[in-house]
Amino acid sequence: MSIQKPKGTQDLLPGEVEKWQYLESKARELCRRFNYKEIRTPIFEHTELFSRGVGETTDIVEKEMYTFLDKGDRSISLRPEGTAGVVRAYVENKLYGEPDVSKLYYVGPMFRYEQPQAGRYRQFHQFGIEAFGSVDPSIDAEVIALGYTFYKEIGLKEVNVEINSVGTPSVRTVYRQKLQEFFEPVKDKLCKDCQSRYDRNPMRILDCKVDQKYGEGAPDILQYLDEECTIHFQLVQEHLEGMGIPFRINPRLVRGLDYYTHTAFEYKAAGIGAIDTIGGGGRYNGLVEQIGGNDQPGVGLGLGLERILLVLRDQGVEVPKPEPLDMYVIALGSAAEKEVTKLVYQLRQQGIAVEKDYLGRKIKAQMKSADRLNATYVAILGDDELARGEITLKKLESGDQLTVSLADLAANAPKTLFA
Amino acid sequence: MSIQKPKGTQDLLPGEVEKWQYLESKARELCRRFNYKEIRTPIFEHTELFSRGVGETTDIVEKEMYTFLDKGDRSISLRPEGTAGVVRAYVENKLYGEPDVSKLYYVGPMFRYEQPQAGRYRQFHQFGIEAFGSVDPSIDAEVIALGYTFYKEIGLKEVNVEINSVGTPSVRTVYRQKLQEFFEPVKDKLCKDCQSRYDRNPMRILDCKVDQKYGEGAPDILQYLDEECTIHFQLVQEHLEGMGIPFRINPRLVRGLDYYTHTAFEYKAAGIGAIDTIGGGGRYNGLVEQIGGNDQPGVGLGLGLERILLVLRDQGVEVPKPEPLDMYVIALGSAAEKEVTKLVYQLRQQGIAVEKDYLGRKIKAQMKSADRLNATYVAILGDDELARGEITLKKLESGDQLTVSLADLAANAPKTLFA
Repeated sequence: MSIQKPKGTQDLLPGEVEKWQYLESKARELCRRFNYKEIRTPIFEHTELFSRGVGETTDIVEKEMYTFLDKGDRSISLRPEGTAGVVRAYVENKLYGEPDVSKLYYVGPMFRYEQPQAGRYRQFHQFGIEAFGSVDPSIDAEVIALGYTFYKEIGLKEVNVEINSVGTPSVRTVYRQKLQEFFEPVKDKLCKDCQSRYDRNPMRILDCKVDQKYGEGAPDILQYLDEECTIHFQLVQEHLEGMGIPFRINPRLVRGLDYYTHTAFEYKAAGIGAIDTIGGGGRYNGLVEQIGGNDQPGVGLGLGLERILLVLRDQGVEVPKPEPLDMYVIALGSAAEKEVTKLVYQLRQQGIAVEKDYLGRKIKAQMKSADRLNATYVAILGDDELARGEITLKKLESGDQLTVSLADLAANAPKTLFA
Repeated sequence: MSIQKPKGTQDLLPGEVEKWQYLESKARELCRRFNYKEIRTPIFEHTELFSRGVGETTDIVEKEMYTFLDKGDRSISLRPEGTAGVVRAYVENKLYGEPDVSKLYYVGPMFRYEQPQAGRYRQFHQFGIEAFGSVDPSIDAEVIALGYTFYKEIGLKEVNVEINSVGTPSVRTVYRQKLQEFFEPVKDKLCKDCQSRYDRNPMRILDCKVDQKYGEGAPDILQYLDEECTIHFQLVQEHLEGMGIPFRINPRLVRGLDYYTHTAFEYKAAGIGAIDTIGGGGRYNGLVEQIGGNDQPGVGLGLGLERILLVLRDQGVEVPKPEPLDMYVIALGSAAEKEVTKLVYQLRQQGIAVEKDYLGRKIKAQMKSADRLNATYVAILGDDELARGEITLKKLESGDQLTVSLADLAANAPKTLFA
């Protein structure tokens, strides 16, 4: 009996994996321009990190983590998101001691035990950035701009940026009370989750996926922002306008995690039905301290690669094709076979992408392979040619061919031989 | 209290992570030339895959796996090596139905619960390749050559290739009996592990790390190879010689895993004491069937990136430095600040790597940042210049400077402005 991959996971095979390579190389290239440096943290962390950093009462920590005891009886969890590990590494490695702002990015797998559905997997992949050490609103705007630029440069056709301010903890204390007052009359009619949110975090009621009608007419947090929050939010908007990033203020945008302060934002892809939000983030000035570090501000974003690929597909956006194979080398006869192994290796050492046959097939089948691999050139070596030290080189597209010495082919780029 | 990373794991931070990026991009580039395509399999698999594919009685499966029950009560393990998952994906996705040989590579994290030591981590990283569907000795030689070329191209100074043939199962049945006869007189003097190996797999006694003296004079497997094995091994050597890959036959090389057939090989780095083997692999013609697929041959290799980095460091090999920052833009005055956000974004959209300040620092501190970031250019915008629509551009190395219009800087590569 054959063994299957675990439920909710994917094999990324040649033909599909090139899209992933493309998205990742675009992300890395964009981070180079924006001066974000890569950080890699472990795939698993002590469970306590996520209870503290994501929140003990969140769905992620309560229901969705892959948590287990290691052989040393430590509670370990596969990371369900990227920020907590990066914050932990920032603190543990004392990056806050560096004179510049720490601008970091990561790309990698995350794990949540959820019901798999289109674009949602138990092992999924995120590209994220985190900037620590600055309260300057221009860096909030930069983070928002980086995500927006990523979507645009990979070819997404419509991306809407929504922003909000979720204030500071003291602002939210007042606002939560106002919300509780507002929802008090309908408290018993709210969905079960929202009834529990009423006490713990009434802002999340605004985010209810079951029934939004009770939230209509609820007070907006923007009315309760204090001067510091208002100025910060205003400046973020001015920087975005200066950069020409289109955005819309959505006062109901609260994000799923409790650690955000000031700026919260999401990207939405238009016209793809159920999949709406394709990424988001915000400022989290209390998180570093919560995880055991000193009081350092931070702001970041996270984008789900599976969702982006789904939207690219739905919008009919093609990603660039990988480079074709440069040359396929065919041996006719057993003496030629050993020479071909040597020649192929010489060409590969020169930087040329070369393939040969490994199945003892006839020339016709090998020519078909060359076609399938989209080879630019085919080189054919028979025992007679080998005796003369020569080889036939053919350009597949035009059919042009010439005979060159083996030494010339091994030492020169094929296109120069046709010049 | 702050939370630490799990024991035996690493944070790869800017300054160190660039070495990883370099090794990975070299591996990918080499695979392009050798026509190996990337495959990505899940970080965890059903535990049964590794019991079957790595071997129920191996140390890896018996002692070293991170195994746990998921919320659906399935036994799941973090992958302890790369081959089993790739074989599973090859079978499950029916890649054997394709007309060409499947040549695949992977780069990623693996997990073993071992005592951490220099170059050995609980989360470690491997670059590996697997080629399925061919019994042609030229592909064994190609796999060996790819690993050797990787080490050479990243600058390792001395890499010794050792090869052996471990025969087919029927050859090994005879050989094992000969070994048991040889060890019978000293059976009780062998180490505890080897006493258990005596019955299960006496070939592994030759690999004993505790005491090698009892293996002296033991029969070599090469004496017992049948004609098929002898010819295959001979042809692998001829192809290696044709390519100019230096190698040495080591008849004691048996590898830790039981699934190898015919070719087995290892790479050893000279002169680094305890760390000796830096990678290896072999042919595994029975493995695909063992994992539940049809009878397809395979050959592959796996290289540990942590060990390679350790050897690079011990040998004093420098990896190439990442590209420097192109430009640091300094704002003097609050009006200039907003213009700088815009200008920086325009430059980044052009493909230029640009940084600015986010800490409201004075010009001197910002110049220091530009130096630390190894910026090629610094651009300085004061409120006066802003009023004239101009900016000062300075080449840090030469000190050359000029005044250009903001529009010219936003639209042109900086070096053309100095031309």
